[in-house]
Amino acid sequence: MTLGVVILAAGKGTRMRSALPKVLHPLAGRPLLRHVLDAAEAVGAARICVVYGHGGELVPQALADADCTFVEQAERLGTGHAVQQALPAMADVDRVLVLYGDVPLIEAETLNRLIADSGETALGLLTMTLADPSGYGRIVRDDTGRVQRIVEQKDASAAERAITEVNTGIITAERERLAQWLGRVDNDNVQREYYLTDVIGLAAADGVEVVTAQPETLEEVAGVNDRLQLAELERYHQRRTAECLMRRGTSIADPARIDIRGRLECERDVVLDINLICEGEVRIGAGAHIGPNCLLKDCDIGPSAEVLANSVIEGAHVGAGARIGPFARLRPAADIGRDCHIGNFVEVKKAQIAAGSKVNHLSYIGDAVIGSGVNVGAGTITCNYDGANKHRTVIDDGAFIGSNTALVAPVAVGAGATIGAGSVVSRDAPAEQLTVCRAKQVTIEGWERPRKK
Amino acid sequence: MTLGVVILAAGKGTRMRSALPKVLHPLAGRPLLRHVLDAAEAVGAARICVVYGHGGELVPQALADADCTFVEQAERLGTGHAVQQALPAMADVDRVLVLYGDVPLIEAETLNRLIADSGETALGLLTMTLADPSGYGRIVRDDTGRVQRIVEQKDASAAERAITEVNTGIITAERERLAQWLGRVDNDNVQREYYLTDVIGLAAADGVEVVTAQPETLEEVAGVNDRLQLAELERYHQRRTAECLMRRGTSIADPARIDIRGRLECERDVVLDINLICEGEVRIGAGAHIGPNCLLKDCDIGPSAEVLANSVIEGAHVGAGARIGPFARLRPAADIGRDCHIGNFVEVKKAQIAAGSKVNHLSYIGDAVIGSGVNVGAGTITCNYDGANKHRTVIDDGAFIGSNTALVAPVAVGAGATIGAGSVVSRDAPAEQLTVCRAKQVTIEGWERPRKK
Amino acid sequence: MTLGVVILAAGKGTRMRSALPKVLHPLAGRPLLRHVLDAAEAVGAARICVVYGHGGELVPQALADADCTFVEQAERLGTGHAVQQALPAMADVDRVLVLYGDVPLIEAETLNRLIADSGETALGLLTMTLADPSGYGRIVRDDTGRVQRIVEQKDASAAERAITEVNTGIITAERERLAQWLGRVDNDNVQREYYLTDVIGLAAADGVEVVTAQPETLEEVAGVNDRLQLAELERYHQRRTAECLMRRGTSIADPARIDIRGRLECERDVVLDINLICEGEVRIGAGAHIGPNCLLKDCDIGPSAEVLANSVIEGAHVGAGARIGPFARLRPAADIGRDCHIGNFVEVKKAQIAAGSKVNHLSYIGDAVIGSGVNVGAGTITCNYDGANKHRTVIDDGAFIGSNTALVAPVAVGAGATIGAGSVVSRDAPAEQLTVCRAKQVTIEGWERPRKK
Repeated sequence: MTLGVVILAAGKGTRMRSALPKVLHPLAGRPLLRHVLDAAEAVGAARICVVYGHGGELVPQALADADCTFVEQAERLGTGHAVQQALPAMADVDRVLVLYGDVPLIEAETLNRLIADSGETALGLLTMTLADPSGYGRIVRDDTGRVQRIVEQKDASAAERAITEVNTGIITAERERLAQWLGRVDNDNVQREYYLTDVIGLAAADGVEVVTAQPETLEEVAGVNDRLQLAELERYHQRRTAECLMRRGTSIADPARIDIRGRLECERDVVLDINLICEGEVRIGAGAHIGPNCLLKDCDIGPSAEVLANSVIEGAHVGAGARIGPFARLRPAADIGRDCHIGNFVEVKKAQIAAGSKVNHLSYIGDAVIGSGVNVGAGTITCNYDGANKHRTVIDDGAFIGSNTALVAPVAVGAGATIGAGSVVSRDAPAEQLTVCRAKQVTIEGWERPRKK
Repeated sequence: MTLGVVILAAGKGTRMRSALPKVLHPLAGRPLLRHVLDAAEAVGAARICVVYGHGGELVPQALADADCTFVEQAERLGTGHAVQQALPAMADVDRVLVLYGDVPLIEAETLNRLIADSGETALGLLTMTLADPSGYGRIVRDDTGRVQRIVEQKDASAAERAITEVNTGIITAERERLAQWLGRVDNDNVQREYYLTDVIGLAAADGVEVVTAQPETLEEVAGVNDRLQLAELERYHQRRTAECLMRRGTSIADPARIDIRGRLECERDVVLDINLICEGEVRIGAGAHIGPNCLLKDCDIGPSAEVLANSVIEGAHVGAGARIGPFARLRPAADIGRDCHIGNFVEVKKAQIAAGSKVNHLSYIGDAVIGSGVNVGAGTITCNYDGANKHRTVIDDGAFIGSNTALVAPVAVGAGATIGAGSVVSRDAPAEQLTVCRAKQVTIEGWERPRKK
Repeated sequence: MTLGVVILAAGKGTRMRSALPKVLHPLAGRPLLRHVLDAAEAVGAARICVVYGHGGELVPQALADADCTFVEQAERLGTGHAVQQALPAMADVDRVLVLYGDVPLIEAETLNRLIADSGETALGLLTMTLADPSGYGRIVRDDTGRVQRIVEQKDASAAERAITEVNTGIITAERERLAQWLGRVDNDNVQREYYLTDVIGLAAADGVEVVTAQPETLEEVAGVNDRLQLAELERYHQRRTAECLMRRGTSIADPARIDIRGRLECERDVVLDINLICEGEVRIGAGAHIGPNCLLKDCDIGPSAEVLANSVIEGAHVGAGARIGPFARLRPAADIGRDCHIGNFVEVKKAQIAAGSKVNHLSYIGDAVIGSGVNVGAGTITCNYDGANKHRTVIDDGAFIGSNTALVAPVAVGAGATIGAGSVVSRDAPAEQLTVCRAKQVTIEGWERPRKK
């Protein structure tokens, strides 16, 4: 049996008050629609078709790399009509599953249950039970418990309104029969729309069994209509992610103050202090500590490393046992060796720094290769840019760079060399020697301080 | 009909354990009393009189700019007595509304309903309905539903204690009749105080209709007696402010982690990451992103600008498309042009920087005028202060300032000029030329490194 | 009557998924077990014995300074067996109290009530009443209310399962009788373990009165089995700490965003903005303001001092009225005088700075003694390390250090001296004079800018 997934993503999302189509708004750093595509892939969809709305061309553009087709629903004629637009793309599948681009947290596990229970011929309908069902379509069952139809709030009798099992909109059915039923759905209603919901009644009338399943949590089937609902789902998702990390052996100082926007992999006994943000792919080795208010993006932190408060690390590698921060910024291609120290108000970009070297204070290291056991003094600047091109600074093992030094690249400092404080090094400095570049210190006799004007 | 508002602000606030009068403690960055004054103004008060307590002279001092009169209640003789102190200031109004300086979140809309319902002659009383009314004065109504009086907890019968509608203390009445009733209130109680509450019974006995209204939320009528209650109302207010922003089209990463202390105006599709604090008047243009842990105060951020993590911006203007931070600090009168980049560990103060210029790393720019397309290297310092006076640095379009340069103001760098790294520029540098100030680099033969003592 | 306390700390803590024994995981910055030891000391224990499990040698190592004995329970034979291991260490006490190393928030006050109620002969049992008691051992009482025994969930009748009073595991009893009862407990159960719980039934059968007490909150008796529960208790504890501070007169911007890991003492009218972390011993003087996202560790902040956003202060003293930050870092032995200003991107370490001096921008001050009224310009670096030894910089009262100056220690700047911007000061600078060290500024004619390759 091959499965196709239709994702309805044509809603206007007016209440978002945004120039961005609703399904492209991010949750945990990724578009809502991307989460739904993940779920579709996770249930083994052979075909995925996204139905987007008029003017929503940004949708296929933003997900151009996704393994799915895009179909425009040019007119807003309802969910049934929307699914019909996708059927040509489903020609070679046996069954179709309908998901929603603005219902991002649906779990593959839930869908798999629904799919399995539906077998080859039944119509599968995901329902939920609400304490207060008002506003939702109620699931009407006969005396034997068989689903007969869905009745909308406005059409429901008093008895039907008391039903607490409601429709989530997520269904799965045989492709051919679904196509037939959709062909029979009419738009005889106030909105003049063709509702996907109506196929339930048609299926039941045709004697097709309607099986139901329910999600583990209501958040799985919660839709996003405005930014408040988006923020609520974001927080739910983050809380769940934090709990998952904690269960696997990561300590989180405050599960209400962590944001994982992408994937975070932690080895055992990692400690994450408050307000951590992770973006992209982040790996943290065993026993590493991440201090408060840090931002980690696409980086790799070695075991037992320590990232101190208020550090920003992006596209960098931090070796085992290294100590970074507080107030450090590692930029892309910063490769910090084992046991290095990168201290406060230090920026490192596109630079290798080998084991045990220290750049402890107020420095900019860019386009550099620094050996092991090097000490870079406070206020050191690699002058890597001449206004047109970037040049490289090389500092060999064991060199000592005095404070407030400017290294005018391209330039090399030999192994074990010492650079005097305050130097501007524009030619290579030989190994093991002291190199300085310093004017004579003079005291001006009789000089008077400026006076306040 | 002219309305006067009396604000009772004489409470000692002992439980605040503070040297500051309770009504001056800030909520959302402004004194509690200021919020109540806003409400009074919003309902169109022709006169506002604040009654403050003995020793509370800080109150009139702190609100010296408010359009209201202040009256001291020298003796603590109760709320009825307090209102009496304000009546002379109300001589030319028709009706009086009584508010409380420690009930900061009362909504003008609620008061307007109460005022409208009261018409010209009725006494208007704001009540609320509590699941657990214990401790509050109950609203006693007759069989026809007319309010008869308020009975305090200690005086209430069992039947009266079951009443869940309680007094909020907020009332409005005809000035003249209010004065009469207050004159008839006695202090025949344990505290020997004259209670404003007693006028309800007197009004009802006089055949004056008592109309009631209720607030939308209980927080509107919640009083602040200690710092826990203050923190609770602060969080409620911040949450409500966040929701309001989200409904208007602003994305907020975590509505529980944002603090707006003043007014924030966002155009569409602004994204606010976690832990933002806004103080004073802040405007943010369409599509701008504010990173985590930023502090914005009295500033204006242009459309599509990006403020990265951990930046502090105060009294500054940021142009469209500019990129600020991470770890940037813009101080008053920093005027950052369109598409500029201000990078990490950079401080800018009282400086204009024109379109597209870059100050990317570890620099201090103060009292400067910088043209467009200028590149300021890492570690550049404008030496603007000579110990007595501040001087200006001027850098013309397209200049390139090498890293670790000190610009000793007053000084000018011409258009297209290049300053060599590590220079101390104390005289004007001509346009289009290279200017350097650098000692000769020498290597000391036979020098030995110091040894650990 | 002398009291001994046995703390059971032998649990494996598998669900923590940690290389660290469970009882050593920190809550509020201190091991769980340390909190229990504090409670034991607070109830006046004459002897404390911690029973740790096989392989848990890290426990006695980590608490080597605690005034208690450690006993290993080599085999996991149950809580009754564990207490037996501790009895030899209790030889000289009259009564024993049993606590748990993973139940960290038990209050001494609760224990004191239990101890007092138990008198000299009764068995004291701490119980709690749960809405949903499932899984817990129920307290079975006879018709007169006397405790008879504890019945475990799996052995309970329907009637017994309806009992909502359950066992917390915390008991106190006469040492001798406890030893006797433990000798009579058998391991006739599925786990083949000896349960401490069984002594309740034995005591009751012996006619010993079983008195019960209950904790004020359920969190007092909540155990930590995984990192989710640890995070929950951490948050509960932090919230309670915040409330305690607020009641005593400290303003906290958001009680859900503060972490006190150690002891914080605040004088009146201290204001703490969001995301404060305090570690170790921190004292803050009256009227001081701590800005957002600050980290304070083992430090002392003077009255009316102002610590601005994103500052990190460790092992330092900040004088009255001083202003620190934003983005300042004070390291151990930084001693900042009254009314000093330490500004953005400034690091101070092991340095005294006397009253009214200013280090406002991008500087590193280490191993220095700075007088009063000194102005240290932007980008100033004390070059305190020569690669082998640290040396001291001394700057006398009223000196003015020009921007971008390197002070090569050991070096002294005299009172009232001025150092020209960009100088490298390697010899002492005399008082009241201008000292500079600057190469000649030259402009290179005909020079051409590098071109983009």
